[in-house]
Amino acid sequence: MASTTSRRLNVDNINPHVREAKYAVRGELAVRSEEYRASLAKGDASLPFEQVISANIGNPQQLDQKPLTFFRQVLSLLENPVLLEKPDVLLNHLGYKPDVLERAKKLLASVGSVGAYSASNGAPAIRQSVADFLERRDGFSASQADIYMSAGASSGVNTLLHVICAHEKSGILVPIPQYPLYTASLSVLNAACVPYLLDEQKNWGTDLATIKASHEKAKAEGIDVRAIVIINPGNPTGASLAEADIRAVIEYASQERLVILADEVYQTNVFIGEFISFKRMLRQMQKEQPGTFDHVELASLHSVSKGMVGECGHRGGYFELVGFDPAVQAEIYKFVSIMLCAPVIGQCLVELMVNPPRPGDPSYELYDAEYSAIFNGLRERATALHKAFEQMEGVECGAPQGSMYLFPSIHLSEKAAAAAAAEGRTPDEFYCMRLLEATGVCVVPGSGFGQKEGTLHFRTTFLAPGTEWVGSIVKFHNEFMEKYR
Amino acid sequence: MASTTSRRLNVDNINPHVREAKYAVRGELAVRSEEYRASLAKGDASLPFEQVISANIGNPQQLDQKPLTFFRQVLSLLENPVLLEKPDVLLNHLGYKPDVLERAKKLLASVGSVGAYSASNGAPAIRQSVADFLERRDGFSASQADIYMSAGASSGVNTLLHVICAHEKSGILVPIPQYPLYTASLSVLNAACVPYLLDEQKNWGTDLATIKASHEKAKAEGIDVRAIVIINPGNPTGASLAEADIRAVIEYASQERLVILADEVYQTNVFIGEFISFKRMLRQMQKEQPGTFDHVELASLHSVSKGMVGECGHRGGYFELVGFDPAVQAEIYKFVSIMLCAPVIGQCLVELMVNPPRPGDPSYELYDAEYSAIFNGLRERATALHKAFEQMEGVECGAPQGSMYLFPSIHLSEKAAAAAAAEGRTPDEFYCMRLLEATGVCVVPGSGFGQKEGTLHFRTTFLAPGTEWVGSIVKFHNEFMEKYR
Repeated sequence: MASTTSRRLNVDNINPHVREAKYAVRGELAVRSEEYRASLAKGDASLPFEQVISANIGNPQQLDQKPLTFFRQVLSLLENPVLLEKPDVLLNHLGYKPDVLERAKKLLASVGSVGAYSASNGAPAIRQSVADFLERRDGFSASQADIYMSAGASSGVNTLLHVICAHEKSGILVPIPQYPLYTASLSVLNAACVPYLLDEQKNWGTDLATIKASHEKAKAEGIDVRAIVIINPGNPTGASLAEADIRAVIEYASQERLVILADEVYQTNVFIGEFISFKRMLRQMQKEQPGTFDHVELASLHSVSKGMVGECGHRGGYFELVGFDPAVQAEIYKFVSIMLCAPVIGQCLVELMVNPPRPGDPSYELYDAEYSAIFNGLRERATALHKAFEQMEGVECGAPQGSMYLFPSIHLSEKAAAAAAAEGRTPDEFYCMRLLEATGVCVVPGSGFGQKEGTLHFRTTFLAPGTEWVGSIVKFHNEFMEKYR
Repeated sequence: MASTTSRRLNVDNINPHVREAKYAVRGELAVRSEEYRASLAKGDASLPFEQVISANIGNPQQLDQKPLTFFRQVLSLLENPVLLEKPDVLLNHLGYKPDVLERAKKLLASVGSVGAYSASNGAPAIRQSVADFLERRDGFSASQADIYMSAGASSGVNTLLHVICAHEKSGILVPIPQYPLYTASLSVLNAACVPYLLDEQKNWGTDLATIKASHEKAKAEGIDVRAIVIINPGNPTGASLAEADIRAVIEYASQERLVILADEVYQTNVFIGEFISFKRMLRQMQKEQPGTFDHVELASLHSVSKGMVGECGHRGGYFELVGFDPAVQAEIYKFVSIMLCAPVIGQCLVELMVNPPRPGDPSYELYDAEYSAIFNGLRERATALHKAFEQMEGVECGAPQGSMYLFPSIHLSEKAAAAAAAEGRTPDEFYCMRLLEATGVCVVPGSGFGQKEGTLHFRTTFLAPGTEWVGSIVKFHNEFMEKYR
């Protein structure tokens, strides 16, 4: 009988902070949807739908988004540099342009082999290219020494939170709703998440009075609040922050000595308004009021996973540190060293993202056409989905602003809430579970991101092509509302 | 004056556990060596050497090791699947064999796009291929549900330690000397490292009495010892454990209810003896004595970084769980989900590693020739380096057994120890720093891995080609010994 009971590890004695972490984006609904997908693949005809739509996660290439040709041509040469010995075949038989070959050679000269470890913070030449991009984007200088290549933005966030949080009273201001990487990582670290609500009535913008109130409350509880997370453009909300909001956050962070963690991975997914980086605004304010903001510490993150690149499977990203103490940077360097380096092919993809073909380059025309088609396709799908939501009873959804998501609020009846409670679920989880069962469409309940008490939402990507799945949501919704009237 | 002093973060208030972590493989010596490399690249002729040899880290492709052709051909097609539309060009002009195209198609069917996130634990078909490999290797069944794809073995170790360590009294038995990932990760987690010495006199094998004594001592100090790490073949030692040693460890772990963490990333780098996996031995013992070892929990790790593959820049790896509670596995799944998934191209490389061309396949002959040449080259270099060490005064080094390293002991004079102390260094650090300055050869002092009190060592890879750098070490050593006689 020396079996289960005598195992060393059980769910009650493992790390309680891992156990407490919640990550709904890949949670029960996602697992269930994968089971459905497997059943369908095996020919199961008993389900009421013919395909699973994974609208729970921003995974563009799982759906319809094609990779950008220039990027993938270069990557193919990095993986097999021997091909560069046959330029005539590449150029004349495979449609590669000369700038593809040039870029591959340049990147290979920088990294040696994509199979070799780079420096722990990334290949120097790639970091330089990121710095050059930031200078062009913001109009202010940037240094490769302040750039850290990461395995997607997630690993960058993990690094920064690990270094910033010193003990269980260390707190981080996190927007609600938020991408649950932040709350989950803070759970694992056993540090304090200090939530501040975004203002749904103002297009999910930041409200300084709300931030201040959350901060003061946490301080009164003995929390040493050290940083504020801003996700701009927002996830799950899609909102682009206005300049005034960004200025207000920087001023507040300056006064209160809060490190700013600017998650800017959706910076190119903007339909309404304009993306303004925290770096640019901080430098602008430093210029306007010399001396006043010199001590502000900012870490801004970006990745290849989103935007028109959509290469999340490659796990490429970076963060830039502004105003950090060099001794703290040395600790960050050591921390990332323990995991050796970010994937080198992903680092190369970051380089391609920040330094794409320019007008006049042989690959520019195709790159530009592909890029624009993806951008316009996303906007069209967002608009179509939004239009469907507008027609649904009890659903409210602002116009699509950016990122890859809509985050409608849903109003469910008492009867629906009671049925949810009987299953041990929140009403939004209950709604999303029924949606999945009826339509094969997987979305994430608002409770997975946090939401204002008394409100319910769900997050859906607008990446899936076609309109059939949108129609199936509308049909399900009407039936659900009817059943639980 | 609102500058340095008013920053929020400084080295005294950041996470103290990050600060305490040590990771010498990428530490001061490595940073200094990169500075030298940059100076040389700029044409600096003032240094007493013409190249930097990074013998501090097992980074095969940074030195001479070429990637295996079959692997990289497949990867190039995964990165640019459009190439598969031109099979005639691939086959007739680029030397790709039909099995390259077949494999690429199969992998693409499994993952969709290498730019898409896979399931958090890895693409199911790739996990199945790993399970099939384990069955062939060990002669015992394996299930894809117990395989977790990781970004190199390091990230797998990070996951496992995060889940196993519950609080600061949770302890892990770690061999000394060890690859410092273990001690560094335990520092960051604020858990207890319980060191046990390997026996240098017995080719760095495990000694059960020593393990038991360390374990008992830790228990007496109130440590809840939960797991034992075994690195086999050893890093930095190169030793392959004998069957009797493995049996003894499993028996002890079974009695004491210790999870076994078997780091087996050097399983193909074996010159002397035979690699025996912990999984095979555990299953064997379970068969021999039914019921006795059923409760043993084993996690074994492997990666694409070492062996004849040497693709560390791709950050591919996996771990297999044996005997774990399904509820604990669910927590591990959730934990890896927070970082989304391991790089998908790295997952594909794992598939290629575990399922390479077989006799009769079109790519087999070349694959086999390349693989054997790398293996023989490593053995030759190891032998040449070992021969040099044997001739050096005060240096003792066992015959090269495997992995990518030699770990000689060095006997330094009191005078050298005093000079080191005057610089605030340990004698082995002092020796390695002088070696770097004189020759450009970067090795890691034994103190970076831990060593028995009163002994000194350094770890060097034997990856670098040529014999000149070996000669420069001998020359330096003689001069050093003369100077500090």
